[in-house]
Amino acid sequence: MTWAAAHGLQVAARSGEAFTFTPAPLAVMPTAYPKVAFEKAKAVADPMARLYANVANDREWLHETLAGVIDADPFTANLLQLHKEVDSPQTMALGIFRSDYMLDGPTGDMLQIEYNTIASSFGGLAQRVGAWHAHSLARLGTEDPFLKAHVEAVTGGAHHGIPENPTTEQLAAGLAAAHKAHGGGTALFVVQPGERNTMDQRHIEYALYSNHQVPAMRRTLAQIAESGRIDATGALVLDGQAVSVAYFRAGYTPDDYPTEQEWAARRMIESSDAIKCPTLAYQLSGAKKVQQALAAPKALDRFLEDQADKDAISASFAGLWALGPEADEESVTAVAEAMEHPERFVMKPQREGGGFNTYGAAIAEKLKVGAHDKSLADSILMQRIMPPPQPQWLLRAEEDPLRCDAVCELGIYTVFLGNATEAPLNDYAGWLLRVKPETVDEGGVAAGYACLGAPLLV
Amino acid sequence: MTWAAAHGLQVAARSGEAFTFTPAPLAVMPTAYPKVAFEKAKAVADPMARLYANVANDREWLHETLAGVIDADPFTANLLQLHKEVDSPQTMALGIFRSDYMLDGPTGDMLQIEYNTIASSFGGLAQRVGAWHAHSLARLGTEDPFLKAHVEAVTGGAHHGIPENPTTEQLAAGLAAAHKAHGGGTALFVVQPGERNTMDQRHIEYALYSNHQVPAMRRTLAQIAESGRIDATGALVLDGQAVSVAYFRAGYTPDDYPTEQEWAARRMIESSDAIKCPTLAYQLSGAKKVQQALAAPKALDRFLEDQADKDAISASFAGLWALGPEADEESVTAVAEAMEHPERFVMKPQREGGGFNTYGAAIAEKLKVGAHDKSLADSILMQRIMPPPQPQWLLRAEEDPLRCDAVCELGIYTVFLGNATEAPLNDYAGWLLRVKPETVDEGGVAAGYACLGAPLLV
Repeated sequence: MTWAAAHGLQVAARSGEAFTFTPAPLAVMPTAYPKVAFEKAKAVADPMARLYANVANDREWLHETLAGVIDADPFTANLLQLHKEVDSPQTMALGIFRSDYMLDGPTGDMLQIEYNTIASSFGGLAQRVGAWHAHSLARLGTEDPFLKAHVEAVTGGAHHGIPENPTTEQLAAGLAAAHKAHGGGTALFVVQPGERNTMDQRHIEYALYSNHQVPAMRRTLAQIAESGRIDATGALVLDGQAVSVAYFRAGYTPDDYPTEQEWAARRMIESSDAIKCPTLAYQLSGAKKVQQALAAPKALDRFLEDQADKDAISASFAGLWALGPEADEESVTAVAEAMEHPERFVMKPQREGGGFNTYGAAIAEKLKVGAHDKSLADSILMQRIMPPPQPQWLLRAEEDPLRCDAVCELGIYTVFLGNATEAPLNDYAGWLLRVKPETVDEGGVAAGYACLGAPLLV
Repeated sequence: MTWAAAHGLQVAARSGEAFTFTPAPLAVMPTAYPKVAFEKAKAVADPMARLYANVANDREWLHETLAGVIDADPFTANLLQLHKEVDSPQTMALGIFRSDYMLDGPTGDMLQIEYNTIASSFGGLAQRVGAWHAHSLARLGTEDPFLKAHVEAVTGGAHHGIPENPTTEQLAAGLAAAHKAHGGGTALFVVQPGERNTMDQRHIEYALYSNHQVPAMRRTLAQIAESGRIDATGALVLDGQAVSVAYFRAGYTPDDYPTEQEWAARRMIESSDAIKCPTLAYQLSGAKKVQQALAAPKALDRFLEDQADKDAISASFAGLWALGPEADEESVTAVAEAMEHPERFVMKPQREGGGFNTYGAAIAEKLKVGAHDKSLADSILMQRIMPPPQPQWLLRAEEDPLRCDAVCELGIYTVFLGNATEAPLNDYAGWLLRVKPETVDEGGVAAGYACLGAPLLV
């Protein structure tokens, strides 16, 4: 744990402007992970980013696809409305995407859980988790009988080590590319007022300055509403400086918009010539509803040409079904199965951040109203993936280590800079491995369910 | 402060095995420091280390010099007794020395405060303080009107930047050199049970492993007494591993020896063939009494040959006078002056760690008994150095920044490996700058008086 603290693998001990930090929740043991699946996730990162950028640039399709959730999901409705009203002079957008996958034990498939297009977090910490595990393996892997036995048990003996993880540098490089493309004076990190995961963000800020000499300011939406303005050239100006790239680490949940002021700030940023990470369109394209719509037969044909790309992406899609008025025949079949076997499904609302999914008997309860009921329109039904468990020790600061059987979720980061016609940047940007007890349904680290871990490729 | 936390510039928030950390106390502004004085301190590091190693190897002189303090200082008496009793098979010793200096405003001299031969701390953090200030200067030095004005005010305009600070790597390199010279299996960090400054130590441990693949274990004296033994070859064996180098970050204060057990552990280590950092002799040579004795006329002739070395060292000595039965004529004169002008002096007892010196009116009170009184034998009288103050902001976690006029103390680290006939290693190992309000007498960071800062060479 001291290694973690010594290398900035930390979160604030309390929310707000606190200066006391505590190690991030950590999975002590490396997690054996199939090299083939890891490489597949890396390989599909490029077409997946193009897919989502194309979705975001397809205004018509996006609006139509999300039209059905407006009534049931006022937050998405607000974002959509803003997107319809605002016309930005800036066509370039920056995506710091993270595609999350789980292995399905029964089938051996690696299936996408979700595609994050806003505030994909833990990039600043994940790199350090990898370094920590690599350090432990090098330092103790052959000496410590406990770690040695564990590695042998989960890998069967041979392994390919922990993959390099360039998250911090790559995310900073993405922001720097956007900064350069814009030419403005400062990057802007849009942050939540009570953020505890500040260090994750600071690592990126420091790398942005150290590696690219790009300064950044941190502001909440409320602060931006207060002191920001758009000048005659269309630039977003804060404290006398033009913003080159606005990087959102806030704005993804309704809680981030307690008053009209925050919406006004969002509108101002979107209207400006700053490059947004993400734009409203990018954010909207990360909706669960979009994910479900893309999984429909032939849906990918609208956005991608290369068949190999489409096949690779399709192979990573789990079963996904619309609910509410848009539910089709397949939805009805799936709902019927879910009433009988809710353990095979998960119900997901639009909102981001972890902690809001429905599992088990509660699914059957919610589905009682029938697949087409309007109250379900903000949710999708998804195949429940059954990842194979591994023995693990989970460590939270100030708590006893928890011995458990744990499952993991692999995230693959991409940095993408592009507009409707070109994409000067589309790079793999590292990994995140979240590990949680098999018995826990939810997966968010910040929400308190999962720990940060590292894949040991086998 | 988040930068500090992100880069491991931290201390534990509580004592003991806590995992919550808080930034170390920091001086926000760089401290203008004369380049000439800084270079002088660097240059004298080599002969100063040889001087102290020669003192440590001169058993007779050391015992004689310290004989006078035995009655008044039972802790030094115990160390001395152990040194007389124990004969180690290991002649090589490792010194991680730190020579502390203050600038005397009235004379412009750079004068030695003390020479630390055991547990010279903050090497692991000082490097990060330098990096933090260099980062701030690069990031904000030309933009931030506050920092810019400060730098111009204290430097007069031009400066040579903040010197590189290789402390972590150099201290680790010293330990690695000792490890290699010995050939044993593991380094041993001897630590205090309730240590808060663990991160400082961990940085060295991690560098020792990363850069030299030398593993280290951390043990308290009590734990060593419990599980350690000396095998037939003379090796100190802990948990089945032979100790190559025993690095003391404990054992310098009587509080570290609450029972006979801790003394037994110290005896075991000293008796073993492990290379000690420091040996009892090195530790004893760091006594204030030795410092005072070396300042006596011609004292250096016994230990050094080169006149330039002796001159450089002498020039760094402040006025130092014996007290108690050994007080001489000069002591009597100094005591008389101190009764009249106690503000010109400081009274120092043997013990390490900061917080035990006597200042001002209290000096006159203590000296009432007369220069030769036995009760004074554990102390020396020293010229009070009057460093020139500079404006500063001192920052402690969870407290408001303190605006004050501050003075500083420069420490220069040396790593030294040698015995009576050879010294294969004698290297400058970086700097430490401690900054404290002008109005505060004591200087220890761990004791809560000073903050970590960085010199901006002018």
